Amino acid sequence: MQALTVCGARILPLTAVHESRGTLTFGQVGQGLPFTVQRFFAVYGVPSGKSRGAHAHKTLHQLLVCLKGSCVVTLDDGQTCDEVLLNNPEMSLYVPPMIWAEQHHYSADAVLLILASDIYREDDYIRDYDQFTTAIK
Amino acid sequence: MQALTVCGARILPLTAVHESRGTLTFGQVGQGLPFTVQRFFAVYGVPSGKSRGAHAHKTLHQLLVCLKGSCVVTLDDGQTCDEVLLNNPEMSLYVPPMIWAEQHHYSADAVLLILASDIYREDDYIRDYDQFTTAIK
Repeated sequence: MQALTVCGARILPLTAVHESRGTLTFGQVGQGLPFTVQRFFAVYGVPSGKSRGAHAHKTLHQLLVCLKGSCVVTLDDGQTCDEVLLNNPEMSLYVPPMIWAEQHHYSADAVLLILASDIYREDDYIRDYDQFTTAIK
Repeated sequence: MQALTVCGARILPLTAVHESRGTLTFGQVGQGLPFTVQRFFAVYGVPSGKSRGAHAHKTLHQLLVCLKGSCVVTLDDGQTCDEVLLNNPEMSLYVPPMIWAEQHHYSADAVLLILASDIYREDDYIRDYDQFTTAIK
């Protein structure tokens, strides 16, 4: 499991149950899910070469799972950076607040699931990188 | 949107944002997600002809979204039945407690996401259909 340098971010294994009737992967509070979920979203159909994200959250916790295909997530805490390949539905990436994150290199079939600790609040977003670096100082 | 006859079950639209950089579909508490989520699981790699589920929950609320491919969910409240084709990541199926549910006819590429209102508790499951019909009387 890749060790991350960015403050607070972690790769968490999900529990997988492999059976003749298919595979089930799960996470739950206390076991691969560090928060209760108020919002979920799925990202798919991202054309080759396009990126998404490029913002930080003031208070939101997120868990990313690439359920199909692959994508790459870059994380930046203002001091150090990580690049994480998500290509396995048995792993997840926990992103705490105040991390600048961007997703790119989506495969054509990629389905990225993001679970979030709160509902959508526009004032929780930091969309300007200079504002982000100022805020974390 | 298909109207369901089974008590309490509903098909809920998710909000979709279509952009040149891909599609994002989301639900959140108060908008397509009727509960906070303590557990999530994904089901995939289900061979043709295999079914999953075939149980009811005493207290658990669930939301099903087929993020890729398709599957069919049968619901049974002991009085009436519904059959729901999930083949669109912009729709979800809310399944309240005390509904007997089974999933089948998974496409080879199907990825079914299930969000649940509580962590795994074996004593919340009713796995015997006769016990289920007795319990709902």
